[in-house]
Amino acid sequence: MKAGTKNRILEAGAEIIHLKGFNHTGIQEILHAAEVPKGSFYNYFKSKDDFGLQLIDYFVEYYTQFSKGILEDAAIPPLQRIRKFLEWFIEFFRSKDYAYGCPIGNLAQEMGDLSPAFREKLKTALDSIVDIYARLLAEAQQGGEISQNLDVREAAYFLVSSWHGALVHMKAVKGPGPLENHIRFIFDHVLRG
Amino acid sequence: MKAGTKNRILEAGAEIIHLKGFNHTGIQEILHAAEVPKGSFYNYFKSKDDFGLQLIDYFVEYYTQFSKGILEDAAIPPLQRIRKFLEWFIEFFRSKDYAYGCPIGNLAQEMGDLSPAFREKLKTALDSIVDIYARLLAEAQQGGEISQNLDVREAAYFLVSSWHGALVHMKAVKGPGPLENHIRFIFDHVLRG
Repeated sequence: MKAGTKNRILEAGAEIIHLKGFNHTGIQEILHAAEVPKGSFYNYFKSKDDFGLQLIDYFVEYYTQFSKGILEDAAIPPLQRIRKFLEWFIEFFRSKDYAYGCPIGNLAQEMGDLSPAFREKLKTALDSIVDIYARLLAEAQQGGEISQNLDVREAAYFLVSSWHGALVHMKAVKGPGPLENHIRFIFDHVLRG
Repeated sequence: MKAGTKNRILEAGAEIIHLKGFNHTGIQEILHAAEVPKGSFYNYFKSKDDFGLQLIDYFVEYYTQFSKGILEDAAIPPLQRIRKFLEWFIEFFRSKDYAYGCPIGNLAQEMGDLSPAFREKLKTALDSIVDIYARLLAEAQQGGEISQNLDVREAAYFLVSSWHGALVHMKAVKGPGPLENHIRFIFDHVLRG
């Protein structure tokens, strides 16, 4: 099945590139992991760059769909949903020995300076992630959970960008400390009522 | 002069690796930029990895020495020194078209999962950068500039890790927005009195 093969290539590439980076990963390696014959790559992707750009869409779609389970749970107040989601990530990274980090953040760091096409797509990807949190913070503000004076878009931007930095540090210390520290400062200082 | 040649290789490597990453940069490319004959690399470095590890020391030493000009200026209160230094970086990155980011943050992201030797060295490097800010925040706390309740080590850690995230976003948006947003939240929320 065509759609199945394309998806297998994206899934395998997501895993390897998430860990090793885009430039350090070869197409061969991805196809081998996906158990797909070499020739078929170009049936689905025009080039390695085209694959990388489609991979960004794949990551954003995955994140958006996956995050809904916690972030759209109306039974929990919006701020608590954000905290629960970030704490879920700490457990997730614990299970991955504190490796990987955020694929979008990683690619922004690696490719932002090297490819205008990647940069444009990553900028849009980061914006769409910030949007998710801006909506939740607006909801929290309407419910009186956070100050009316807070610019929710700026706060959401800081929440996401500082999380990306915490993930970089997590990879260096191989422990949850930077993520726990991030949650502490975001909730005790930035988002306090 | 031997020391001169080694330093030229480190300087050239610092520039290229800062922009392109470690794995994506070849030794040949560095030696070409340094205008040093190929054979001489192994007079100074055991391997590319050994070069990368020495490069981390080079970056930390450079940062520590350079930052003293602003961060140890006793004529200015410690919090203002930090703000001045971060604002200096915004101008610096403006002159670089918002490329590069932090070499230590970049390498932590790229190499943290791939090499225990890099990871250990990067962890120490990040700690020594956090130490600089922890000392300044302790000084600010003694002077009553920030709350006595703030854990200055945790706050310094957050200041540095969130800055690294802001630099990643800067590379994606090619503008000062993420850095300006970082400074706003750090000073208005985390370090407010």
